[in-house]
Amino acid sequence: MGKRNLETCFSPALYEPERHAGSIVVVIDILRATSAICTAFENGAASIIPVATVPEARAYKEKGYLVAAERDGYVLDFADFGNSPFNFTREKVAGKTIVYSTTNGTGIIKMAASAGYIIIGSFLNISALTGWISKQERDVVLFCAGWKNRFNIEDTICAGAIAEKLLTTSLYSTICDSTLAAIDLWSLAKNDITGYIEKAAQRSRLRDKKLDDCIPFCLTADHTSKVPVIRDGILVSMD
Amino acid sequence: MGKRNLETCFSPALYEPERHAGSIVVVIDILRATSAICTAFENGAASIIPVATVPEARAYKEKGYLVAAERDGYVLDFADFGNSPFNFTREKVAGKTIVYSTTNGTGIIKMAASAGYIIIGSFLNISALTGWISKQERDVVLFCAGWKNRFNIEDTICAGAIAEKLLTTSLYSTICDSTLAAIDLWSLAKNDITGYIEKAAQRSRLRDKKLDDCIPFCLTADHTSKVPVIRDGILVSMD
Repeated sequence: MGKRNLETCFSPALYEPERHAGSIVVVIDILRATSAICTAFENGAASIIPVATVPEARAYKEKGYLVAAERDGYVLDFADFGNSPFNFTREKVAGKTIVYSTTNGTGIIKMAASAGYIIIGSFLNISALTGWISKQERDVVLFCAGWKNRFNIEDTICAGAIAEKLLTTSLYSTICDSTLAAIDLWSLAKNDITGYIEKAAQRSRLRDKKLDDCIPFCLTADHTSKVPVIRDGILVSMD
Repeated sequence: MGKRNLETCFSPALYEPERHAGSIVVVIDILRATSAICTAFENGAASIIPVATVPEARAYKEKGYLVAAERDGYVLDFADFGNSPFNFTREKVAGKTIVYSTTNGTGIIKMAASAGYIIIGSFLNISALTGWISKQERDVVLFCAGWKNRFNIEDTICAGAIAEKLLTTSLYSTICDSTLAAIDLWSLAKNDITGYIEKAAQRSRLRDKKLDDCIPFCLTADHTSKVPVIRDGILVSMD
């Protein structure tokens, strides 16, 4: 096999399911969904069930599941906690199945149903992630979740960091302008990631809601060696 | 009025017509459509009629119009010339109405029908363009045409250059991650634009088809003071 193809998609609105059939799709939504998911597995969660709607999350709660559910940054009244990675402590999640309410995330999972694998990426698991990916003989798409279908800076620099690591293996090639731009933005961000994303719109949104305490943590490389993957609609850890 | 809002859209797939109603929409497709259009007006073209399909272009040709029409980089047999800016010489176009076949461009014009103005941007008219824009009391969207709905590097750096110029007037503000990323990519490109876009996919496509002779020209700032605008579906110059 020749070099594997590496592409980046800046928004769900730009995803092309047919082109990416069979590829590894890396979902990147670092502030805060994919960072929270990586943290949950690091702290021993058994599995995570992503659900799209509040009624679904509530129904799971009534069945006795641990439920993480927010809307617009506010924890829903029936939920056990919100979507910050700091909520997913070992005390709370070890050995448990967690229901995670995410409209955007479940949409992305459906959209990427033709993928070979859907895995969860963040800075927190970047080396484990790229290590796992490079053992597979598959093309890769870095799928930035964005915000309301828009491009965002924080997921893009994480995609750039992942792309840079994959390209250094010499197993991949890319002719994808999005990937090349992501790498260039990462090159501007890498020496001071926290400073770089000060200008990001999501940075301001989280600050306004006082939900920004987790940002430095979300920008930390290699907090975990877990690589979460979707199997039959449910997230489990491959490691 | 407070500061005007400046946003950037990296692909037609990301354009939000309702959000941008009343705004100035700057269409950017520098390799080669918007550069060719600016050149045509610089060389005295009276107006340009964008048409979507080959039969439409052919029908205009039969009525005696000058027709620029390509598909996949090849000049159509009935056309007078293709889409390279070098074709739009003063000898050919002065005083004429030109029919320009562009599937992508006509789609964008329809999509942006709710805009206050749809104008044509490129490096070739960047100072005239930003000068004209800043005289209007309107929000601005830099609409990169992309390629098959994908992000592309060359239109993005042009958007970054335009955004940088507009922001230096202090009339605009932006909380748009796409704009901030475009400016950062422009900062990497500006000292050697030709070198920077060597990696762009469109650069390779044009090279493969031997259509890349116009690239250095398309990256030249301020070749013209013309600002093409769409009026009733037809491009005219505001000068």
